[in-house]
Amino acid sequence: MFLPRKVLEDKLWDILAEDLGQGDITTALTVSADSTAEAEVIAKEGGVVAGMEEAVIMLEGLGLKAEILVADGQIVEAESILSKISGVTRTILSVERTLLNILSRMSGIATMTRQLTERLRKAGLGTKVACTRKVAPGLLYFDKKAVMIGGGDTHRLHLDDMILIKDNHIAVIGSVEEAIRRVKDQVSFNKKIEIEVTSINDALTAAKANVDIIMLDNFSPSEVERAVKLLKKEQMYGKVLLEASGRITPANIISYASKGVDIVSLGRLTESTTALDISLEVIRLN
Amino acid sequence: MFLPRKVLEDKLWDILAEDLGQGDITTALTVSADSTAEAEVIAKEGGVVAGMEEAVIMLEGLGLKAEILVADGQIVEAESILSKISGVTRTILSVERTLLNILSRMSGIATMTRQLTERLRKAGLGTKVACTRKVAPGLLYFDKKAVMIGGGDTHRLHLDDMILIKDNHIAVIGSVEEAIRRVKDQVSFNKKIEIEVTSINDALTAAKANVDIIMLDNFSPSEVERAVKLLKKEQMYGKVLLEASGRITPANIISYASKGVDIVSLGRLTESTTALDISLEVIRLN
Amino acid sequence: MFLPRKVLEDKLWDILAEDLGQGDITTALTVSADSTAEAEVIAKEGGVVAGMEEAVIMLEGLGLKAEILVADGQIVEAESILSKISGVTRTILSVERTLLNILSRMSGIATMTRQLTERLRKAGLGTKVACTRKVAPGLLYFDKKAVMIGGGDTHRLHLDDMILIKDNHIAVIGSVEEAIRRVKDQVSFNKKIEIEVTSINDALTAAKANVDIIMLDNFSPSEVERAVKLLKKEQMYGKVLLEASGRITPANIISYASKGVDIVSLGRLTESTTALDISLEVIRLN
Amino acid sequence: MFLPRKVLEDKLWDILAEDLGQGDITTALTVSADSTAEAEVIAKEGGVVAGMEEAVIMLEGLGLKAEILVADGQIVEAESILSKISGVTRTILSVERTLLNILSRMSGIATMTRQLTERLRKAGLGTKVACTRKVAPGLLYFDKKAVMIGGGDTHRLHLDDMILIKDNHIAVIGSVEEAIRRVKDQVSFNKKIEIEVTSINDALTAAKANVDIIMLDNFSPSEVERAVKLLKKEQMYGKVLLEASGRITPANIISYASKGVDIVSLGRLTESTTALDISLEVIRLN
Amino acid sequence: MFLPRKVLEDKLWDILAEDLGQGDITTALTVSADSTAEAEVIAKEGGVVAGMEEAVIMLEGLGLKAEILVADGQIVEAESILSKISGVTRTILSVERTLLNILSRMSGIATMTRQLTERLRKAGLGTKVACTRKVAPGLLYFDKKAVMIGGGDTHRLHLDDMILIKDNHIAVIGSVEEAIRRVKDQVSFNKKIEIEVTSINDALTAAKANVDIIMLDNFSPSEVERAVKLLKKEQMYGKVLLEASGRITPANIISYASKGVDIVSLGRLTESTTALDISLEVIRLN
Amino acid sequence: MFLPRKVLEDKLWDILAEDLGQGDITTALTVSADSTAEAEVIAKEGGVVAGMEEAVIMLEGLGLKAEILVADGQIVEAESILSKISGVTRTILSVERTLLNILSRMSGIATMTRQLTERLRKAGLGTKVACTRKVAPGLLYFDKKAVMIGGGDTHRLHLDDMILIKDNHIAVIGSVEEAIRRVKDQVSFNKKIEIEVTSINDALTAAKANVDIIMLDNFSPSEVERAVKLLKKEQMYGKVLLEASGRITPANIISYASKGVDIVSLGRLTESTTALDISLEVIRLN
Repeated sequence: MFLPRKVLEDKLWDILAEDLGQGDITTALTVSADSTAEAEVIAKEGGVVAGMEEAVIMLEGLGLKAEILVADGQIVEAESILSKISGVTRTILSVERTLLNILSRMSGIATMTRQLTERLRKAGLGTKVACTRKVAPGLLYFDKKAVMIGGGDTHRLHLDDMILIKDNHIAVIGSVEEAIRRVKDQVSFNKKIEIEVTSINDALTAAKANVDIIMLDNFSPSEVERAVKLLKKEQMYGKVLLEASGRITPANIISYASKGVDIVSLGRLTESTTALDISLEVIRLN
Repeated sequence: MFLPRKVLEDKLWDILAEDLGQGDITTALTVSADSTAEAEVIAKEGGVVAGMEEAVIMLEGLGLKAEILVADGQIVEAESILSKISGVTRTILSVERTLLNILSRMSGIATMTRQLTERLRKAGLGTKVACTRKVAPGLLYFDKKAVMIGGGDTHRLHLDDMILIKDNHIAVIGSVEEAIRRVKDQVSFNKKIEIEVTSINDALTAAKANVDIIMLDNFSPSEVERAVKLLKKEQMYGKVLLEASGRITPANIISYASKGVDIVSLGRLTESTTALDISLEVIRLN
Repeated sequence: MFLPRKVLEDKLWDILAEDLGQGDITTALTVSADSTAEAEVIAKEGGVVAGMEEAVIMLEGLGLKAEILVADGQIVEAESILSKISGVTRTILSVERTLLNILSRMSGIATMTRQLTERLRKAGLGTKVACTRKVAPGLLYFDKKAVMIGGGDTHRLHLDDMILIKDNHIAVIGSVEEAIRRVKDQVSFNKKIEIEVTSINDALTAAKANVDIIMLDNFSPSEVERAVKLLKKEQMYGKVLLEASGRITPANIISYASKGVDIVSLGRLTESTTALDISLEVIRLN
Repeated sequence: MFLPRKVLEDKLWDILAEDLGQGDITTALTVSADSTAEAEVIAKEGGVVAGMEEAVIMLEGLGLKAEILVADGQIVEAESILSKISGVTRTILSVERTLLNILSRMSGIATMTRQLTERLRKAGLGTKVACTRKVAPGLLYFDKKAVMIGGGDTHRLHLDDMILIKDNHIAVIGSVEEAIRRVKDQVSFNKKIEIEVTSINDALTAAKANVDIIMLDNFSPSEVERAVKLLKKEQMYGKVLLEASGRITPANIISYASKGVDIVSLGRLTESTTALDISLEVIRLN
Repeated sequence: MFLPRKVLEDKLWDILAEDLGQGDITTALTVSADSTAEAEVIAKEGGVVAGMEEAVIMLEGLGLKAEILVADGQIVEAESILSKISGVTRTILSVERTLLNILSRMSGIATMTRQLTERLRKAGLGTKVACTRKVAPGLLYFDKKAVMIGGGDTHRLHLDDMILIKDNHIAVIGSVEEAIRRVKDQVSFNKKIEIEVTSINDALTAAKANVDIIMLDNFSPSEVERAVKLLKKEQMYGKVLLEASGRITPANIISYASKGVDIVSLGRLTESTTALDISLEVIRLN
Repeated sequence: MFLPRKVLEDKLWDILAEDLGQGDITTALTVSADSTAEAEVIAKEGGVVAGMEEAVIMLEGLGLKAEILVADGQIVEAESILSKISGVTRTILSVERTLLNILSRMSGIATMTRQLTERLRKAGLGTKVACTRKVAPGLLYFDKKAVMIGGGDTHRLHLDDMILIKDNHIAVIGSVEEAIRRVKDQVSFNKKIEIEVTSINDALTAAKANVDIIMLDNFSPSEVERAVKLLKKEQMYGKVLLEASGRITPANIISYASKGVDIVSLGRLTESTTALDISLEVIRLN
């Protein structure tokens, strides 16, 4: 998900502009225009850092100097200094909250993602942890990137990314077979095809219709187990990727993953995020 | 926070456009352009609904018909139908995820806010529950509005809203007195002045300097108690609003509020949101 | 009203782009791409300078060097050089008119504002001179900032700034009391409340209802006097700010201000502006 | 200057959005969402109305009904009703100020333009009154259109409109002849060529070089007279349009126009505008 | 590639706005605001029609009525009426050129695409015809959609669509193997992987590394033949899709396609387009 | 058509952003963030180069160094290096296709334009070659500029540029005379007036009505000849510019131009462009 700086900047200035309104009136009245300062960005609790690339682009775009002490994806302990910033004091104070909002959210997402991927790894499972499109509205780029930094899979980046036939599509079309047939007729060679199924039989139907990925939606762990068993019996297992989705929590993720799926996906990674506590402190006036 | 429909639409189309990329390829390949359908938006768990106004504006703006069954601010039980939607099937399916992301996040925020305001109300306390500017980046409007719907106080809508002298301002200026003096010299008559203090003495200083609101930052409940006691002794209590901020959780909110502050504010309302589970189901093709 | 450079630039490029259309065809045909020049920005008449911050951000953003000789808020005499500019000649000539339009309008507003604030100051009055939201469409930021530079009060920066219950609100609600009651029920603690009244009795009602500011709308100076007298008699004077608005002109401003109001506000400061005559002259080719 | 509604709307929503910020908090707290009302837009003083087309597009775009009683360009007396509006009360109150700012400015410009064109017409002169690019920053479209409605000439709409060689171009190039030669070599056949001259001799040089229009810049009326006399003597008069610009005021416009120029242009039409007093009154709740 | 109308409109208004500048001055001066008319959009030559969906959205968005007589993808003969339009004459005339530019370009692309896909079909070949990202700058959506309507494959819609390791990536990384290895380590499960190779040996290497698609770049038909032969010998043929790209023209497309590749791709489909001649004629005033 | 860099950048980032989507995933996975490289932009075939100014602004705006070896308008042979680029490898690879799309299209347009202007020049004809508004949608600026670089005339840059009364205007108004009359009544002095005529008699009518340019639309060369003859007979020839438009091809351009028209215009210059083959090659890692 590499974006050249200028393309990313447009997203960042929009976010910053909303917070500024007609301007930072407190800073304008209390700090002189020619004051310069140094500040530190500090993680107040431990976790996986994400958003540093965006932070630096924002800070440098505003004319500040930003020294990066911790790279995206690194694990830090509480009270770690992530970055040293220097430049015009007014600019530092006006961007503080927007900067921290980006870092805190992205780091929170990366931290939870890492916890889950580590849990699976320690259980000796190769299952991937994926997010969904259940993001904070408008934050697809930032939320997906944070998941990637945390070691998770980004799943679809938007609706043009892969074919994903969902429950409502099937409800409209009438059957799994017909849905897959319509797609196969016209789809570009460069797209994978995934289908969401709600029964073990539909999983088998989809596998036989030769899709790339089957999403077992809202299956219990034992239903997942039976679906895997049926696919093995029909010699389809291993020829299609299996994704378990729905009902998965940090508490039950092992019981899903251990049943033989390739991917477990959780909306909560990005829609029920716990922000990492990060703050900015002015440490010196120049 | 009333915005005429057209001004709100611009925010909504930006959010929708990111999710669409070059278009919904699954829907285009599986659903014919002239198909129409009815669908229901359903809360899968109980909570306070928020975002209905935004949902309707988005749906109607896209040419769909949207019947509202539950208004913003209403409490619903699990499996409640929030809205019935009808129109072009392709449009319904393409907007589904963006619509639900807005509703789920706003309802999640409103639900947590209501839980806290109810807790205080049941404890017989008139303390206000406020959010902060710790929102998902770019979602100030939506997050603040959801807090308001949940019965909370929106606090500053952006940086031009009120004077709020924070720790870093004081670090730059040198003292609470000087910070307040600089502001008072020039501030518009239509702005209130709040200052964040980190000691009981600074709270007294600020009260004597005649600010409108004092934020007791990262005070323990007993420190809050001592600050209140000191202000009472100096006959300043009641002449200035007191806001407790930092370290406040759903678990300890009563112990803060009961010490005599007017406002308790929590960043987590908007930065560590738990989305309400809401889904959309196509129920009939026309 | 501090805005980081990048956020302000977006406003400036939009203004510049409209004037350029598909490009400056005269300059393209007459001046070679590698020509560089020096130019001076000169006030052709005396006044208070405003817009220099915006000017420098625009010029530097375009890659020009801009030396500031006169700061925002300074009083200059006719023929004063405000800034020396150097860089690519084509860029200087293409931005000339947009640059001067910003400087001339902002300086014109600041100059008129200063004249009025000086008039009050010389009369020994502490009354503030405020503008309104009657600005050139789309120029709230620039017009308000110019007023501030001229020593005036910016009043509301937009509609989310303060509660201001106006005549039409009261017409819809039915009474001053009910309007204030509705607001007090729900308003955020960080907002002041102002109400516009059209009679002396309503002024008293509003004062008793404990609003922060009362706008005496279209009162004559003697009506203002009677309102002040009544508030004094009822011991409400001094407990609420009083703003006189409507009908106020440079000619009668003293007669209003001397009656005991805290603020006099005039739409004409920003809607019937006289531009300060400022020009740009190329003085040397390099 | 016909723009289809949708293209014009984008300009209007930007203007409206700035004034709204995060929303009209007063209206939201005082007026219920389902209230509807009727209102009138009233000219409080007489003048030439302009901006009605923009007003209607804005009002209808916001879902209001707008009945037009006075068309753009019509002369009205004080207290004339320009339009009757009906629809959602919240929308009417939130758009009121932005609507009036557009109408007041455009009508103010049209009114002053008409006064000058009438003055010339009554003096029996066919001279055109033109504005310049000295507009409020960003308001080229609105300001130029208002001049046109007032009977004036819009002059260049932006920098790609016509070749206009100005003083600074000549300063860079070195001579009037060389400047014209460079342009003539390459200019598109669909552009006219105008040149600004500061001496009578340069006017003759330009006329002989066969430009379309000569701008006599900062000439006194008697200098204009001598330039005309010289051109007549050289049999160039009538073969090139003459524009007098700079120093022209309502007071001396006749003395300029009567000397034989085709166009008189005044920056003040658009940069030192006096707004027409127009207001909106809610007259009935439905 | 389904986009809800509102999201598509934003692209269309930007295109229209550039052509309008400050407005259609010819139409404004010649046609009265209340004139309405009927017009026909007519293909002056035969071909495959594309862009009708966009055309209707633009016309209806502008308040015109548009009757569609020919759907996207249909083949028409010269002088076919594609659509009947009615509504405000000024709007019809102002949008005419932009409307035709979209229809002509998209129909030209669809027509050439259909010619090539038909040529292959008649030769009994199932090879897909694909475009590339060599589009007119900024027209990815329109150009890709036109290819799809013409029966071609859209290939990547943007850079986040599929992994495509190109010559310059390999030049940077050093080898085909290493490039594939790096990607396989981290790529999302929902992405296919394609690699561009310039030698037959690299094609075999890539096939063994288990990519999804191999692009044979700038191969001659006989080189393609040898690559296919080698893959067959190594029993890799059929396990990976083969795409021939570079040097392919309408003249030699059969000789490439008949060698056993799955896809032939041509930049010229979208970068060297021949517009279909389409015009608009006003046929009646109402 | 000079645009300051910042104004041009906005167009360029929009184009780049569409191609990037959520980011260049291939480059992100294969190339490290701190890798830097040198690359060359090479014309693979001979032609007239255009778009170098835009290319450099894009590259420098992205933080790359770009050395220009060939200026806009220069003729190059196959395999010429146009520019050497150095900087962050990821940025180079991510912008490659967008950069080449701009250069290839603009150079293709400039090359065809130059071929035609040279053909006329060698035939000893001074006739200008002009393009029309038949451009790729949204690319008016780039397409027109490329024509100019190729030695052609840009014709109208948008609809506010010149009065051009077209067939549909006349169909609406009823007659050539009336159309011209309406325009002359109100048109700004700075606009030329052109009218499109479809008969020799209408050409004479238009000439007598004193327009600036007459477009002979879809005339055969012999009809052009007869029109010229008639205008000569009526002593109108030379007093009005004549433009032949419609049906003109590279093959018949001489036969049109030699009949005595001042301008020949061809839509195909910009709507049926053949891109010049230009590529980018990474030549060294640093």
